[in-house]
Amino acid sequence: MTAKRQIKLGAFLMTDGHHIAAWRHARAPANANVRIDHYLRLARIAEAAKFDALFLADSVGVRNDNLESLSHTSRAVSFEPLTLLSALSVVTQNIGLIGTASTTFNEPYHIARKFASLDLMSGGRAGWNVVTSSSESEAHNFNLETHISHPDRYDRAREFMSVVKGLWNTWEDDAFLRDKADGAYFDPAKFHLLDHRGKHFRVKGPLNVARSPQGHPVVVQAGASEDGRDLAGATAEAIFAAQRTLQEAQAFYADIKTRADNYGRDPDHVKIMPGIFPVVGRTEAEAREKFEELQAGIEPVVGLQLLSQVIGGFDFSGYPVDGPLPELPETNGPKSRQKLLIDAARRDNLTIRQLYLEIAGARGHWQVVGTPAQIADQLEERFTKGAADGFNVMAPHLPGGLEDFIETVIPELRRRGLFRKEYEGTTLRENLGLPFPQHRAPRELRSVAAE
Amino acid sequence: MTAKRQIKLGAFLMTDGHHIAAWRHARAPANANVRIDHYLRLARIAEAAKFDALFLADSVGVRNDNLESLSHTSRAVSFEPLTLLSALSVVTQNIGLIGTASTTFNEPYHIARKFASLDLMSGGRAGWNVVTSSSESEAHNFNLETHISHPDRYDRAREFMSVVKGLWNTWEDDAFLRDKADGAYFDPAKFHLLDHRGKHFRVKGPLNVARSPQGHPVVVQAGASEDGRDLAGATAEAIFAAQRTLQEAQAFYADIKTRADNYGRDPDHVKIMPGIFPVVGRTEAEAREKFEELQAGIEPVVGLQLLSQVIGGFDFSGYPVDGPLPELPETNGPKSRQKLLIDAARRDNLTIRQLYLEIAGARGHWQVVGTPAQIADQLEERFTKGAADGFNVMAPHLPGGLEDFIETVIPELRRRGLFRKEYEGTTLRENLGLPFPQHRAPRELRSVAAE
Repeated sequence: MTAKRQIKLGAFLMTDGHHIAAWRHARAPANANVRIDHYLRLARIAEAAKFDALFLADSVGVRNDNLESLSHTSRAVSFEPLTLLSALSVVTQNIGLIGTASTTFNEPYHIARKFASLDLMSGGRAGWNVVTSSSESEAHNFNLETHISHPDRYDRAREFMSVVKGLWNTWEDDAFLRDKADGAYFDPAKFHLLDHRGKHFRVKGPLNVARSPQGHPVVVQAGASEDGRDLAGATAEAIFAAQRTLQEAQAFYADIKTRADNYGRDPDHVKIMPGIFPVVGRTEAEAREKFEELQAGIEPVVGLQLLSQVIGGFDFSGYPVDGPLPELPETNGPKSRQKLLIDAARRDNLTIRQLYLEIAGARGHWQVVGTPAQIADQLEERFTKGAADGFNVMAPHLPGGLEDFIETVIPELRRRGLFRKEYEGTTLRENLGLPFPQHRAPRELRSVAAE
Repeated sequence: MTAKRQIKLGAFLMTDGHHIAAWRHARAPANANVRIDHYLRLARIAEAAKFDALFLADSVGVRNDNLESLSHTSRAVSFEPLTLLSALSVVTQNIGLIGTASTTFNEPYHIARKFASLDLMSGGRAGWNVVTSSSESEAHNFNLETHISHPDRYDRAREFMSVVKGLWNTWEDDAFLRDKADGAYFDPAKFHLLDHRGKHFRVKGPLNVARSPQGHPVVVQAGASEDGRDLAGATAEAIFAAQRTLQEAQAFYADIKTRADNYGRDPDHVKIMPGIFPVVGRTEAEAREKFEELQAGIEPVVGLQLLSQVIGGFDFSGYPVDGPLPELPETNGPKSRQKLLIDAARRDNLTIRQLYLEIAGARGHWQVVGTPAQIADQLEERFTKGAADGFNVMAPHLPGGLEDFIETVIPELRRRGLFRKEYEGTTLRENLGLPFPQHRAPRELRSVAAE
């Protein structure tokens, strides 16, 4: 008898919460972005609730270049994900630690090394959310005047990932002998130089960090463009998706699993976890009231700028805020999210204000406002109808919104047998149900990539 | 009445210890380089003993490219310093956290951000040891075929530091208002873009991390070449020095303090902390015996390779190991250390074997083998005779060698009134006696640099 398939859950931590005005909420600390104790508490409660992983987004710069808008949000500053996850690794034992890092403005050696170090320190609980960077504000921090194009970013990303994986295979799992008596520390035959020479990178190796109990960090991805889906099908082990409707989520789910299969991979070894922005109330009315309370904190200057940013840089300042959405040009920004948003706005005839209010909390992600049973119903539906293997929980405000979810929705999921009571293992792979990556010498990896 | 001047102490942590054969020692764990609990213990005992800081070296690659030698040491792998220090920040409250990061293969935005994040997480306890990278093995991990020259490295380092300091001055200390009622999160007048356009870097900013309770991380340096000393005089707040004799240490100390003074800085705001490799015994004979026990663990292949590496890449394999040191060519390696070593070897007529045995433990640093009183005498002499403001303790093996120092030498220093019983403050600056860096807008910093 095989165990019943269960929902995987990520706790997406974003300082004071995912709602743009969360910092003004009575239950959220306004200075969460400088308080390590806030994050230590979040990590502990998420682990006590048996979440699979903590998840941190990232940006190597401040994407909002509208100072007036920026100064009315808490988003300009935060801890850096790799240092923060390293700190959280010490106060947790089982929960996964997934951090975002861009392939656009990093060097693969640094990324391979830092995630390997986190993986080893945490006993095999690290995950790397691989993204490409699309904002000009980030480019301007790395010697570039304009941003590189979408296809070029993905070309670099593919090679970047292959270098990182090669470095993670420097050492075989049993390479280290550590024989005090005869002085042999490792077996040279189980040590592999990468010697990568590609279009974007030349990296010789070896990596100076040993493999962890889970082999190497879990590879996570989030891109939903054609290039992003292709890369995900080929290499992702978990995907943080952003579809709003059941139909969109099902189509995305089926597409990724098919791509994985086409790459010769077991589709069950790609866990698809859409984001959910849950607002929980004892009654539906209470939940709506809680949501409106958050919405009321959004200054118009913030809402308009956020909309402009999510949609790819369009300036709405010349348009009436209660008028319809204007025609929008194609941009170099994140295409998939932009398209989803615009389609939704046109379908529902939203005004500019209605659209910014709609995205302010979940920023294009799936938003559910209701009772614990209603939210559990929605999760169960997506989980059982081929739309998700789990969810990345984007609490509206922190820690309160996460506590609400843990105290009311998770017990409901457990009653339905849909969520674990205890961790299955100690590594992130064991808990997500992902296989241990057998060691492959870099030469072998290269020949596979060339097939 | 001013308090008596006291010795500053750093605990230089290197996996199983500073002696190259430490991993074979009975008291050292052979797998220290994969054990976070080993480091948690080291951090706790160093803090309990009131050390000013933990200190971690770094290399973005494996410098030893002789596989046979490498495989007989534990040095090929270790945790990455920024992730490790972040983990250690959580289990400590007062001790400083100094990590090394190279300006040669990093981007200043990443470095400014990660150290600022560590500084904030730790409540103002971070320090950045600024180095340039001289090894070809590291260059080969970052798209380069050969290494860039010594003067070019320092030219880049100077500009790198100025960018990092500019980014650390993005936010004034009282920039954040966090007014929940009126929605103002920060004061735009207290926010400063860097907009740096230099020879090596174009970095716009802002930095997306707030200032810490100590303003920004302490700037530490180690270079002893002419370029290194100049940069240190201009910008270093602490220096990890490597002089072996009292005279050399006094000359270095005087030189740096004079350079700082010439740059218009208070010489007391540059703390000079030479490394010391202490082997402690209840009697001098016991100390010597302990040292010989460690020395006996050095395989010849390891000793020769280590010598070659420290001296700048010279291949000793054609020379009799018990013969004299051959003539050595000028190299692109770390000049100052090479020169000190060769001068010492010629002065004492050392054979190749004697030289590698001499440097194996402390690798060119000052080595003291004796009783607690003898070691305290030596420290006191250098401290009172203008050769040091403190010391970076390089325990031969860990944790044992650090425990020996803490249990026997530190009580002796305390009896003499030379070392603290309690921390003076909670930030690294407070404990080192360094001033709080008043915020200066990047424009102001630039005009100072141009003077």
